[in-house]
Amino acid sequence: MNVALLGYGTVGHGIHEILSRSCDTDISTLQITHILIRKGKENILPIMCDDIQDILNDDEVDIVVEVMGGLQPAYSYIMRALKAHKHVVTANKAVVAKHFRELLETAQENNVKFMFEASTVGGIPWIQSIQKVKRIDHIYSIKGIFNGTTNYILDQMLKKSSTFEVALQKAQELGYAERDPSADIDGIDIRNKLMISVALAFDTNPPEDIDTFGIRTIQKNDMEYFKSLDKVVKLIAYSRIHHDTGECVVEPILYPIQSVEANVPDNFNLACIYGETIGELKFYGQGAGKLPTANAVIQDMLDIVEDKQQVFKMSRKYHFYNNMNSKTYIIRCSVSNHEFEKIFPNVEQRVFYGKHIYRYIKNMTTTQAHFGMKKIRELDSTAFMASIKESI
Amino acid sequence: MNVALLGYGTVGHGIHEILSRSCDTDISTLQITHILIRKGKENILPIMCDDIQDILNDDEVDIVVEVMGGLQPAYSYIMRALKAHKHVVTANKAVVAKHFRELLETAQENNVKFMFEASTVGGIPWIQSIQKVKRIDHIYSIKGIFNGTTNYILDQMLKKSSTFEVALQKAQELGYAERDPSADIDGIDIRNKLMISVALAFDTNPPEDIDTFGIRTIQKNDMEYFKSLDKVVKLIAYSRIHHDTGECVVEPILYPIQSVEANVPDNFNLACIYGETIGELKFYGQGAGKLPTANAVIQDMLDIVEDKQQVFKMSRKYHFYNNMNSKTYIIRCSVSNHEFEKIFPNVEQRVFYGKHIYRYIKNMTTTQAHFGMKKIRELDSTAFMASIKESI
Repeated sequence: MNVALLGYGTVGHGIHEILSRSCDTDISTLQITHILIRKGKENILPIMCDDIQDILNDDEVDIVVEVMGGLQPAYSYIMRALKAHKHVVTANKAVVAKHFRELLETAQENNVKFMFEASTVGGIPWIQSIQKVKRIDHIYSIKGIFNGTTNYILDQMLKKSSTFEVALQKAQELGYAERDPSADIDGIDIRNKLMISVALAFDTNPPEDIDTFGIRTIQKNDMEYFKSLDKVVKLIAYSRIHHDTGECVVEPILYPIQSVEANVPDNFNLACIYGETIGELKFYGQGAGKLPTANAVIQDMLDIVEDKQQVFKMSRKYHFYNNMNSKTYIIRCSVSNHEFEKIFPNVEQRVFYGKHIYRYIKNMTTTQAHFGMKKIRELDSTAFMASIKESI
Repeated sequence: MNVALLGYGTVGHGIHEILSRSCDTDISTLQITHILIRKGKENILPIMCDDIQDILNDDEVDIVVEVMGGLQPAYSYIMRALKAHKHVVTANKAVVAKHFRELLETAQENNVKFMFEASTVGGIPWIQSIQKVKRIDHIYSIKGIFNGTTNYILDQMLKKSSTFEVALQKAQELGYAERDPSADIDGIDIRNKLMISVALAFDTNPPEDIDTFGIRTIQKNDMEYFKSLDKVVKLIAYSRIHHDTGECVVEPILYPIQSVEANVPDNFNLACIYGETIGELKFYGQGAGKLPTANAVIQDMLDIVEDKQQVFKMSRKYHFYNNMNSKTYIIRCSVSNHEFEKIFPNVEQRVFYGKHIYRYIKNMTTTQAHFGMKKIRELDSTAFMASIKESI
């Protein structure tokens, strides 16, 4: 099959590199015939072009692979490719999360496939695994460490006793974090991946307004305090369904130091699914990076070659409101007891550790915690919060 | 498609249970039309029969599912079913490990599928994952915790400070271990799963004579000593390929307490694969049990319904001799220094812990260690050995 790459950044290079190797595996059926580059950039390869229309008009192109990133023009190009009856493979979580239903419906109407394994936890076969579990089981919950950059930062802080700033800088030097790291450290990237996973796992439209709390304000002192409790903090995406309601959240969670989650190192990801008969499955691997992401894109192409079945329903409706269950939160901030208790009246315990005070609030719903923390942050922008694992 | 079950034990019941649920998933395409039971047993369901020939003669039967266990008559029935042009799905690791090549070739000759996901680490989609990784990558190594019974025993000994005997008894009470637990605790079960995984991952015949050392002789004192080193012992299947040679071993390995492997709890399994571009992938889940195993069998049936491609090559030849790399072993036994050093001359260190002596031998190959331990066990049948993770 003939493949057109839109974009030639890190992942594009990775795809080109893997497909260029001489080998006796299935990938020899795939040839890159076009690479779309930005207008004005130099054509360093004869297969490069700068007009999407050249690709869409070419009847020989079977698969369009979008690895440009960003919402526009990626979204328009994908839509145009689907309408031109090309299969589309993308690694772009922002586009998939935002336009999930429209993209899948457009693919269906045009009798082509729309594949996005690489958009969510990169090299881990997660999208495929959700679909596979669903063939037999009702899925009760999904959760995991969906972002390698923040896992790397937390792991460095834990193992090297780094400050957040030093760990972030190291992540940037290694290419794990962008110059503006907001999407990672504020949980936006994870939220996009959670939206895609939830839509797929629960046959529904991606939920909007997901309660999201990142790790921007975590401090060395927090890490040390959690360690003294034999806990490790991880930034977790979590969703579960119960009857017709659903819960959906991105937040730091404390895990026992002796757990699989607590021991996911470096920039690795962990994606977990809980099904009716299969029980708990966890998938560990590289959630990003040139070759693992390129590998996931190529796996999608091979599924297109094999004409693998895909069924997307989006037929169910759930109310996602995070009042289903309550748990314990630990909040660190410098707000006075008086002010704090105006926002969170039921403080269970206060612990002084290092130079900070940690307040425990039991039996709080996710909504209450995230809503309250917005007010706390108006008083202390450095405040941090984490929930405790045992209770979810 | 019409399905005939051979055997109606735990897994057979699980399959029947899942397929009997009313549901809107893909499994509604599968109907059980026959259940083969032992001659002389009572037909409690109208679809039961006691003659395999009734099933083989019935043109309406599309898939034969073998869940009897044991080598015979399971092997003969599978062969006859394939020759009668039925697809076969099995959960029987002993048959698959022993007759791998013949079964796959017979299936190919008769233009039907032979599927065995459930034979190796049960509910974890491992067989499928190996095949998927191979579509793009050369696989460098596979390894993992391939047996839930022994993991449960080791986990109980670690967390509850149980003796081996108490932990084994508990495993038996929970149905994790057989009345004769030898296949599990001596590593035979794991060896079968390793043979299947290696054959598939490296496109070769299953290696024979795999160096295998189980956990039959582990004692509470060993667990406590390892804990004092911040290590946890796990019974590991491991294989890697380098050029035209391969290494293949089942043995207890010490992992740092802060690692994913060390924190696999209860009777869970972990299966790991290392590929050229995808890097490290780890799969965690239930390796046995009624519903997870039944789920894996049904996944295979659904792949038959979808006519999913399978490619088995077995075209490569490797020399599996475990002299490729050397590592550190710790051996606990009551043999005198003089006798011990006749077998292992280069003792690096001796440590007394509790009532035992632990001897360290560095730079030893797997073959040397396993060969030497056979002699040590002639002198002290309670001797135990483990290698240390850092060096593989």
